[in-house]
Amino acid sequence: MRSMDFRPVFLVIGILLSTLAVFMCIPAIVDLHAGNPDWQVFAASAGVTLFVGVAMAFASNSGGRNLTVRQAFLMTTLAWLFLTIFAAMPLRFSELGLSYTDSFFEAMSGLTTTGSTVITGLNTAPPGILIWRALLQWVGGIGIIVMAIAILPLLRVGGMQLFRMESSDQSDKAMPRAAQVASVIGIIYVLLTLAWAGGYWAAGMSGFDAVAHAMTTIATGGFSTTDNSLGHFDSAAIDAIATAGMIMGALPFLLYLKTIQGDWSTLFRDSQVQWFIAVTVLAVLTATGWLWLDEGRALTDSLRYASFNVVSIITGTGYATEDYTLWGAFATPMFFFIMFIGGCAGSTTCGIKVFRFQVLYSAAWTQMHHLLQPNGIFIPHYNRRPISDEVIVSVLSFFFVFGICYALLALGLGMLGLDFLTAISSAATSISNVGPALGPIAGPAGTFQTMPDAAKWLLSAGMLLGRLELFTVLVLFTRSFWRG
Amino acid sequence: MRSMDFRPVFLVIGILLSTLAVFMCIPAIVDLHAGNPDWQVFAASAGVTLFVGVAMAFASNSGGRNLTVRQAFLMTTLAWLFLTIFAAMPLRFSELGLSYTDSFFEAMSGLTTTGSTVITGLNTAPPGILIWRALLQWVGGIGIIVMAIAILPLLRVGGMQLFRMESSDQSDKAMPRAAQVASVIGIIYVLLTLAWAGGYWAAGMSGFDAVAHAMTTIATGGFSTTDNSLGHFDSAAIDAIATAGMIMGALPFLLYLKTIQGDWSTLFRDSQVQWFIAVTVLAVLTATGWLWLDEGRALTDSLRYASFNVVSIITGTGYATEDYTLWGAFATPMFFFIMFIGGCAGSTTCGIKVFRFQVLYSAAWTQMHHLLQPNGIFIPHYNRRPISDEVIVSVLSFFFVFGICYALLALGLGMLGLDFLTAISSAATSISNVGPALGPIAGPAGTFQTMPDAAKWLLSAGMLLGRLELFTVLVLFTRSFWRG
Repeated sequence: MRSMDFRPVFLVIGILLSTLAVFMCIPAIVDLHAGNPDWQVFAASAGVTLFVGVAMAFASNSGGRNLTVRQAFLMTTLAWLFLTIFAAMPLRFSELGLSYTDSFFEAMSGLTTTGSTVITGLNTAPPGILIWRALLQWVGGIGIIVMAIAILPLLRVGGMQLFRMESSDQSDKAMPRAAQVASVIGIIYVLLTLAWAGGYWAAGMSGFDAVAHAMTTIATGGFSTTDNSLGHFDSAAIDAIATAGMIMGALPFLLYLKTIQGDWSTLFRDSQVQWFIAVTVLAVLTATGWLWLDEGRALTDSLRYASFNVVSIITGTGYATEDYTLWGAFATPMFFFIMFIGGCAGSTTCGIKVFRFQVLYSAAWTQMHHLLQPNGIFIPHYNRRPISDEVIVSVLSFFFVFGICYALLALGLGMLGLDFLTAISSAATSISNVGPALGPIAGPAGTFQTMPDAAKWLLSAGMLLGRLELFTVLVLFTRSFWRG
Repeated sequence: MRSMDFRPVFLVIGILLSTLAVFMCIPAIVDLHAGNPDWQVFAASAGVTLFVGVAMAFASNSGGRNLTVRQAFLMTTLAWLFLTIFAAMPLRFSELGLSYTDSFFEAMSGLTTTGSTVITGLNTAPPGILIWRALLQWVGGIGIIVMAIAILPLLRVGGMQLFRMESSDQSDKAMPRAAQVASVIGIIYVLLTLAWAGGYWAAGMSGFDAVAHAMTTIATGGFSTTDNSLGHFDSAAIDAIATAGMIMGALPFLLYLKTIQGDWSTLFRDSQVQWFIAVTVLAVLTATGWLWLDEGRALTDSLRYASFNVVSIITGTGYATEDYTLWGAFATPMFFFIMFIGGCAGSTTCGIKVFRFQVLYSAAWTQMHHLLQPNGIFIPHYNRRPISDEVIVSVLSFFFVFGICYALLALGLGMLGLDFLTAISSAATSISNVGPALGPIAGPAGTFQTMPDAAKWLLSAGMLLGRLELFTVLVLFTRSFWRG
């Protein structure tokens, strides 16, 4: 066995933990300002996290700086796990009195921008907790974008090599360029959040609610400051702003970079964006038609509620303005299947993602023509460029592994005693990082609170697995990973 | 447009229809012997079918004998469709008074060896109808085996090219050899049916029930002569005989040929057989453990009911000895997911099939190792032989197209007003040709009778699509098929 040098891995994790500690000061300040004793919990958690982070970074400082492939896989998975463990700390010791399982679940749901919650009584929860939940999703969101742009394409996970930047191949230039791109995208992310906070505020939210929701909108996270999610505000303007924001969060952030560089058309010429918009519009129109014609709702109402809730689920945000599981027979299967779609690669969304459906469609189309003309040469394309066999097999394997992981998760939940609908929809919502499941227990009108602890751990594992595009986690369980 | 010569296609269909007409004489004789007036319906249907078949064959006789790839696709799909249309005729005009929709559904369910039924009151149904339903599955079963051995490998549908016989490549020898193999396999099929009929009879069934059930067991079809399926007989011996028969029907028939040629070990050295047995044993043991430990049933009872019902669903037979949807929380997701598995290629089973899972697993395994060692060379294997990229993409595309077709089917059923569980399990049971769905309506204790007509047509389409391995039907809807 060629032993692995863990120092570069823990150096990165140490730095990330220290950053998390800095973010913990925000809820501490908010609670201190509101006169809530929880500020001490946040301050203490920040202290502990900072201490561990700095110690880890210093202890690992002597290692090399360049990560090997194996180190990069380990770092990505462990970083998410360590951040969750420490992010759960203030939730555990706050006034809410959550168990450690619940705290871990909530923190994982936050950092992976899932949006499933175990907390009821949000309307009266301390502001520190509310802003911490929003911050977790916001930090998770930018983390995901950076990971999707800078790390996963190099690791070639599930076809992400399609999104390698031109410069990535010269490794000496790759990192500085990636860091530069990451900072510009960070700025775009902050600006979008500010813009949406302003929009929410102008539409009537309090400043606090506006900021908290802007953070979870752009991150397509879905945590809210009320038990009724955005339905609480009952405002068509807020619904529209949120819908637009969730779509913004679901588009490839790299293309925003090109847009502000003056290349306005790239965003709309990108085939992934076109497909995403087309699929979303199709789903919204179908749901609108159903609500209007079958359920007898007014057309404007149908459009408002269908567009908001469909966009929320398709982008994996997880807000709700109504219990859409009560929208008649068609609603449940529709919301079930659109959970899996997700947004574009390089966005804050999760799920299978639109580019994979494009590659899969293209592969299936090629396959059909190849059946008819065995000697013909048909090459699948993505975004007007030919795709290599490597990418196709990579994406197709992802789809298969996704199916298997999903089925095992659902079976596990069934074994823990959950009813069929709750089991198969909770498995879907966790692996796709959506938020609510379906049915009375964990659906848009429920929470995951009443589930057994084992189910919460299983769902947390599902969220991590889905968020890291499966393979990043799964390779750690192969023998050859540890053999080198 | 290069126009297609339809004559070779209709020549084959004409011959098949004439054969079907001959089979229609069997229920006519049975009903005549039982003094049931339905014998006239069967006799008249046989006459009409024979007339159409012979006329079609003669009218098309002047065409060429060799089928092109396009003609073979068209022939396969149309043959199944024409046989269903004519097979439905006696059901439509029999004493049962089924609507045409119901008759078509029942005939499609028969010929595709699905086993879903719209008929209640089987216990008092005329013997002609009962034997006709059994015959449809029996004829469908051998048709599927011959198709899987002789046609699909040449058409390279969904990875079936893995099962090309050595001689297939020399086209001048392929057809006589295929015909020879088909007849020997036909004899094996008849002998197995006779053996199982003897077994059932020895275990206490009437001669009639024994023959009818032997036909639907070896065909992994699932039609029974009673409303309670095999549960009616309440005999552990019959359950055991049926379980063994369903497994026999789910193994590759080509390997039985090698077995009787004296090569006993081939069957057990085949990796598809090994995987199928392993998956089945695992599922049976899990279900047994659940029934025993969680539901508090006696261990022997648990093993008896779990093994029978799990084998029935995994092989897509569709018999039931109990309403297993009442076996607690774990049962429903488990029976849901095992519906998709199916048996081995070249058997009478349907579903995704075990060899595809093997190829998919191998591709995913290779993918993971390739992620860790980008420059390493890893080649996926099937049955100890390397698999080409073409086969991998073929199988992976099948899996994706299967997922999409399944989702569309379930969404369509939801739109027709079926509840969630009924919609998603009926879609699964039809595309995988299993038989019963889940839930009170179409589950093992229900029938498809109460569903709206549109749902029955949709499910019939799903059965055909699943039975013909999707692509065989789907290519007919591409523009390039008709352009040539």
